[in-house]
Amino acid sequence: MANALTDTEHALMDAYWRAANYLSVGQIYLYDNPLLKRPLTKEHIKPRLLGHWGTTPGLNFVYVHLNRMIKKHDLDMIYITGPGHGGPGLVANAYLEGTYSEVYPNISPDEEGMKRLFTQFSFPGGIPSHVAPETPGSMHEGGELGYAISHAYGAAFDNPDLIVACVVGDGEAETGPMATSWHSNKFLNPVTDGAVLPILHLNGYKIANPTVLARISHEELDHLFRGYGYIPYFVEGHDPKQMHELMATTLDTVIAEIQRIKADARRDGFTGRPRWPMIVLRTPKGWTCPKEIDGKRTEDYWRSHQVPMGEMHDKPAHVRILEEWMKTYRPAELFDESGRLRPEIAELAPRGTRRMGANPHTNGGSLLRDLRMPDFRDFAVTVPAPGAVTAEATRVMGEFLRDVMKLNMQARNFRLFSPDENNSNRWQDVLEVTNRAWVAETYPWDDHLAPDGRVMEMLSEHQCQGWLEGYLLTGRHGFFSCYEAFIHIIDSMFNQ
Amino acid sequence: MANALTDTEHALMDAYWRAANYLSVGQIYLYDNPLLKRPLTKEHIKPRLLGHWGTTPGLNFVYVHLNRMIKKHDLDMIYITGPGHGGPGLVANAYLEGTYSEVYPNISPDEEGMKRLFTQFSFPGGIPSHVAPETPGSMHEGGELGYAISHAYGAAFDNPDLIVACVVGDGEAETGPMATSWHSNKFLNPVTDGAVLPILHLNGYKIANPTVLARISHEELDHLFRGYGYIPYFVEGHDPKQMHELMATTLDTVIAEIQRIKADARRDGFTGRPRWPMIVLRTPKGWTCPKEIDGKRTEDYWRSHQVPMGEMHDKPAHVRILEEWMKTYRPAELFDESGRLRPEIAELAPRGTRRMGANPHTNGGSLLRDLRMPDFRDFAVTVPAPGAVTAEATRVMGEFLRDVMKLNMQARNFRLFSPDENNSNRWQDVLEVTNRAWVAETYPWDDHLAPDGRVMEMLSEHQCQGWLEGYLLTGRHGFFSCYEAFIHIIDSMFNQ
Repeated sequence: MANALTDTEHALMDAYWRAANYLSVGQIYLYDNPLLKRPLTKEHIKPRLLGHWGTTPGLNFVYVHLNRMIKKHDLDMIYITGPGHGGPGLVANAYLEGTYSEVYPNISPDEEGMKRLFTQFSFPGGIPSHVAPETPGSMHEGGELGYAISHAYGAAFDNPDLIVACVVGDGEAETGPMATSWHSNKFLNPVTDGAVLPILHLNGYKIANPTVLARISHEELDHLFRGYGYIPYFVEGHDPKQMHELMATTLDTVIAEIQRIKADARRDGFTGRPRWPMIVLRTPKGWTCPKEIDGKRTEDYWRSHQVPMGEMHDKPAHVRILEEWMKTYRPAELFDESGRLRPEIAELAPRGTRRMGANPHTNGGSLLRDLRMPDFRDFAVTVPAPGAVTAEATRVMGEFLRDVMKLNMQARNFRLFSPDENNSNRWQDVLEVTNRAWVAETYPWDDHLAPDGRVMEMLSEHQCQGWLEGYLLTGRHGFFSCYEAFIHIIDSMFNQ
Repeated sequence: MANALTDTEHALMDAYWRAANYLSVGQIYLYDNPLLKRPLTKEHIKPRLLGHWGTTPGLNFVYVHLNRMIKKHDLDMIYITGPGHGGPGLVANAYLEGTYSEVYPNISPDEEGMKRLFTQFSFPGGIPSHVAPETPGSMHEGGELGYAISHAYGAAFDNPDLIVACVVGDGEAETGPMATSWHSNKFLNPVTDGAVLPILHLNGYKIANPTVLARISHEELDHLFRGYGYIPYFVEGHDPKQMHELMATTLDTVIAEIQRIKADARRDGFTGRPRWPMIVLRTPKGWTCPKEIDGKRTEDYWRSHQVPMGEMHDKPAHVRILEEWMKTYRPAELFDESGRLRPEIAELAPRGTRRMGANPHTNGGSLLRDLRMPDFRDFAVTVPAPGAVTAEATRVMGEFLRDVMKLNMQARNFRLFSPDENNSNRWQDVLEVTNRAWVAETYPWDDHLAPDGRVMEMLSEHQCQGWLEGYLLTGRHGFFSCYEAFIHIIDSMFNQ
């Protein structure tokens, strides 16, 4: 079988990945000397280190490979970073593709800008360590874990041309909200919604423990995701050379499969729930950092979760290790003398709004349009005398929401979300003009279920809130209804 | 193959089930005339109806079949009712087995007591509609859904002879906490812990929607639970006669499998994570209620979720339907003239504390013993002068917890719970005397993982809190540590 990548492509993609990794390590550690033109000393290193390396090389690996697919197929794709603590990686990629400097001109694509890029990270007056809202291309910060897939589906609803790539860390995969959110595929219409490409990133460890999904058999893992309704594709290994080829081949297959599903749905309409592909990416945690530090296992272990090595101002040996580590990325091959990414490498990034850091879907405000609204006065309950009329407030509001739905049906930018409580809360009139979204099996006696329904009901407040957040953050409108007894299940999501 | 049940057993078990169903319907509807000795009139019916029928016949079905296994093998078994809104069923069963009248003498095993049993349910001054704490044999109320399996595992930890049967509704199965709690089997030690027997009850509908797990293919469902690490056994149907035999056969298999796993573990010690059995029970929602009411599908549909039929005081036809429905259970065959359960039926229930309504594990207070505690003064940090000493409060507390753990190691009644934050919160000294519980795969370089570890770490605050609640409610002690940023994820659990 022919390789997915030519030798040149392979070398360039690896260079792009090394550049992202280099910039990530630089953000975590460096204060000065960004291109390592001078021997590294402790004065070049931040006094207090705070950032997460462990997940970052995997995130960078995914990013460059998605870039390849975007360019190859002119895809409209966004990147949701479940392990949002991998901020250095997403910032590095936005910088490499140019979006970062466009949004933040002070962080220019040169040595001075790179120094500022490094300095600002997790530093007073700088930027947070997570994929925060100020990160170009981010609509999901991470932090409180569990909502990446719900956000991804929320973004995909009513965006038929969008592919939402969503990296899920194996730590986050242990949370409850994440564990149920895989079932979102029972609510996604292949005709009128976009696609979600989940990438479960098994790097094996959390803060101080192995992860559950990395420690079950291959067979169980395969069963689990088939049970969730996906076709899992496995990309597993540690040798970058083999992994680039394997990831490229797999993405070729997976994107072709998504495009086939979409084409079939457009041609034939809805004919049943597709088994969407997903990727299981198993790489070492902290991939490409030193295997051991001070005699302790670091790469492929939980010790690389955050800053793999501290005490930089007390242990000169650590400064040497850092310098050697950063030089394994061969920065001189990646950046020219002025600190600019070499053009043949920069060429790998998509252009304009196809860059994942510049995709407008991740900047919902730029897409948001007002809903067309009926006059609320038309729904007033006439009360001729005190106590003369009995009416239910929510039922009246249901009529109002029905008309809001009707007025915006063409725009496809309004949905209702509820954990199976839409009707018992008396908002059922909205079902006069739409249905409940449902692409799982149906029976003839089912009540208002349809693939293109706009009322989203699953018995998970987390899921409903996550979908809603994803839908809103990509510039649409929604309404969440829930019993007052249970709405506080998602208090913490709301607060975050 | 020989039948699991003789004809006599079969008939008696069906009678027991009908008795439980009869008492459940009676609780939901009746105010008087409990044995239907007189023609039913609207005066015998409560003015306001509130209760959940849909899940109840399935819960009753499981109960009588578990009773058979308890008697057959002298099992120490408790029953966790995920769909805790099925209160009428659990109350009915506690009444049938005698525990209810022992705890509440006014609810006597006769006609007068039955009238009171019916009247008190969901009635001012009476009892709640859920499996509330006052229900004998209950340690899990339901209400806020998602924690049944976590509670079940919490109850099973350090109770090596206990089998915790746990019914999970297919509504609850959509919640996040439930979706991850299936992975609890990676933390259960077959040598020193008990067993959990999950029974996923697919009755197909929630309040007004179908359920996700009832609308995926058999193959996906099978894959899902194999992926979670279980061996699923399917009991599916609607004909009671066939279903009794199928359930009995399946339980014979499943209990034998649990006993084999336990015996192997006792003989050989820990040799790997067992694939525990679980049951998928698919029955019609509202099983045995009228198929249609007022021309609308009711049995096997969401309309039977709560009270299948209202307007009892306005529609005389509904009174007739209720009377006919209740008479399908043939109460005169079940209860004698005085209202007492006929002895040959009553004989099916286990005796004494083997009755699930009387098992002391569900009444933790009766088993709770004080922890042996070190003197906290011994852990004081000596501070010779203000500011002269640097110490971390949690690290000192870690030393204290280490000694608490050490002092109670023999009693096996103390565990720590944390979403992978035990060490980063600086309580790591406790690992000097115990390990983290872990029965999934291990590597030689793993750090303090062991099947009999007493520090429970999974990256799910819901799961940790659920385990802790199950552990405490069965009379043991625990400690939960979590970052302050994320502890409010389980605010609602705590409040409930």
